[in-house]
Amino acid sequence: MENFNFYSPTEFVFGKNRENEVGALVKKHGGSRVLIHFGRGSAVKSGLLERVEKSLDEAGVYHVELGGVHPNPLDSKVYEGIDLCRKENIDFILAVGGGSSIDSAKAIALGVLYDGDFWDFYSGKANPSAALPVGTVLTIAAAGSEGSGDSVITKESGMLKRGTGGDCLRPRFSVLNPALTCTLPAYQTACGATDIMAHVFERYFTNTPEVEITDRLCEAVLCTMVKETPRVIADPCNYEARANIMWAGMVAHNNIVGVGRSQDWNSHAIEHELSAKYDCAHGAGLAVIMPAWMEYVMDHNVMRFCQMATRVFGCAMNFENPSETARAGINAFRRFLKGIGMPVNFAELGAKEEDIPEMVEKMAPGKGWGFKPLNAEDVTKVYELAARACV
Amino acid sequence: MENFNFYSPTEFVFGKNRENEVGALVKKHGGSRVLIHFGRGSAVKSGLLERVEKSLDEAGVYHVELGGVHPNPLDSKVYEGIDLCRKENIDFILAVGGGSSIDSAKAIALGVLYDGDFWDFYSGKANPSAALPVGTVLTIAAAGSEGSGDSVITKESGMLKRGTGGDCLRPRFSVLNPALTCTLPAYQTACGATDIMAHVFERYFTNTPEVEITDRLCEAVLCTMVKETPRVIADPCNYEARANIMWAGMVAHNNIVGVGRSQDWNSHAIEHELSAKYDCAHGAGLAVIMPAWMEYVMDHNVMRFCQMATRVFGCAMNFENPSETARAGINAFRRFLKGIGMPVNFAELGAKEEDIPEMVEKMAPGKGWGFKPLNAEDVTKVYELAARACV
Repeated sequence: MENFNFYSPTEFVFGKNRENEVGALVKKHGGSRVLIHFGRGSAVKSGLLERVEKSLDEAGVYHVELGGVHPNPLDSKVYEGIDLCRKENIDFILAVGGGSSIDSAKAIALGVLYDGDFWDFYSGKANPSAALPVGTVLTIAAAGSEGSGDSVITKESGMLKRGTGGDCLRPRFSVLNPALTCTLPAYQTACGATDIMAHVFERYFTNTPEVEITDRLCEAVLCTMVKETPRVIADPCNYEARANIMWAGMVAHNNIVGVGRSQDWNSHAIEHELSAKYDCAHGAGLAVIMPAWMEYVMDHNVMRFCQMATRVFGCAMNFENPSETARAGINAFRRFLKGIGMPVNFAELGAKEEDIPEMVEKMAPGKGWGFKPLNAEDVTKVYELAARACV
Repeated sequence: MENFNFYSPTEFVFGKNRENEVGALVKKHGGSRVLIHFGRGSAVKSGLLERVEKSLDEAGVYHVELGGVHPNPLDSKVYEGIDLCRKENIDFILAVGGGSSIDSAKAIALGVLYDGDFWDFYSGKANPSAALPVGTVLTIAAAGSEGSGDSVITKESGMLKRGTGGDCLRPRFSVLNPALTCTLPAYQTACGATDIMAHVFERYFTNTPEVEITDRLCEAVLCTMVKETPRVIADPCNYEARANIMWAGMVAHNNIVGVGRSQDWNSHAIEHELSAKYDCAHGAGLAVIMPAWMEYVMDHNVMRFCQMATRVFGCAMNFENPSETARAGINAFRRFLKGIGMPVNFAELGAKEEDIPEMVEKMAPGKGWGFKPLNAEDVTKVYELAARACV
């Protein structure tokens, strides 16, 4: 096991009606002038925003609103937020929504305290060390941003999708009410589930030996998703299944399932080019990319894929021909994705094979990291496998 | 799933040689005058205390020492620590050792800021709301106190062993270097492993339905312990196995495997009377009590014991007679404990069946909580099963 630090200081407030505590939570965590940051209207329509505002009012906390965050959050909204925070002397940012609203809130929180262009943190010019405190009221189980120190923003000029991270970006508190996710359409629910599973797989496929505890924790989340996701697709109002998925989404990405080991994240980087180019949902892009990536890198460590196949998807181990078991696991994953309504190839996603060279160039692979380091040729092959995949 | 709060703000600093960062960590977390609190000499003999002091000196942090904590930490040492902290204007307590040193440090941290008798927190007269900050350098994987808000102290007068808990008692940081545990004798290693597994089982046996994610996380820790414990018993210097166990011990008890569900803790309460009376190791007492408790309550929810048997101990499910599978799981657990050198009955522990009425009276059961509420008669039967158990 490699040396590591694990620090997840977020206060998680989980369950029915917990959004009504948000005013008290903001005060407890030092906020007095709040920017409420949200998406494109569902929080307004559902009445959630009103309940949040009422709770803040009751706690005597001043607040201003900034809605309209795009599903792949854009730099333009971040600049708007930074200006508003400075003008209003905001000292706490409350994201109400999914990963997009939270990631955008984190970018604003960074930018307000920074003299230069906030994009410096995303282009790699600067490392996050200070940010306004952020709290969240989560409405989609997917990104895990409610428990992570990560943020991904898309720069409109050139449609560059880039991420940053640091402990100062971990939310002070996150309110997770599974009931808020019951109205989510099946497609978005499935995209979220795929993202959660991808966050685990990116950590599961490691070159660090003998990390049984994190392996098993990874498998715990994956088994939960395999069981619970089809249940919510069939029965969207199943609170118990929604609750298991929502908490699994946090566990998948606050890094408790990833410490002490090398991680991969190539699939995420490869997918980011898809969602940047076609503005598709990140989870849908991952459903197309992740199994293709698995097929491409499988021979790097067949036994690890056998472990996934047997422990997560219940495949029988073929001791005479482990590669068959490994392939059976990948096929089971793709069937699972198809079964919850996810696309499995470019056509189903709305992507085009002729755009592959452009995406490879933009991604600029070749940094040599991950489970199996991939150069431009490798990434091209992953895209090609993804383009033509079928169940 | 039940509503819950989860808050584990401890900074975990894990791996080889990390104790050399302790000076910087104390400063980062606001300490300037430190009480180093430790046990009965092993930290001195191994040179660990010297390295810790050196690190504090290099960081310019003032420190005084208080050693001699008993394996079942006593109130007398806590009073001594409170006096010393007040005299020396201590603002940070650093526990170097296992659960005993950490629990004693937490009790001192509570007592220094409290006007009355610190025992009020342990007798139930007061609830912890403020304490001096505590940091830890862990030397035994067992109690999980390095990541929990819990503390258990024994009052010498009457040998009352009682616990308290609160978020203010969660350590600010915990240094976990698995190499420090490699010199631990096999018996203490096995006691620690048993304690870790018991912390999970107390959460696993729940009456809350549909908590797949926490079930799976529980099983992740249990499977890890089943794999790794025999490896360190056979090969004490196996760093990788030690590392998996050490991190599993934290995960087992910071409550990430217990949120959203009712818990039990009857086995711990029943065991506390054993270790209070015979001064045996807590883990050894649990090895005798826990399987007996399982046998006694098994019929309350046979399928839950089948889940444990199949998922943790790899038993085949007997669909015609699930009780057989449940019993096979409990037997597998007891064989596992015997295999790592743990006692499985009163004689092997050094306890006496004729003392059962006295222990039942002292424990004063009948509060009606847990997986299956137990009255005095029930507890008597658990002790009797434990007294006469064999593999």
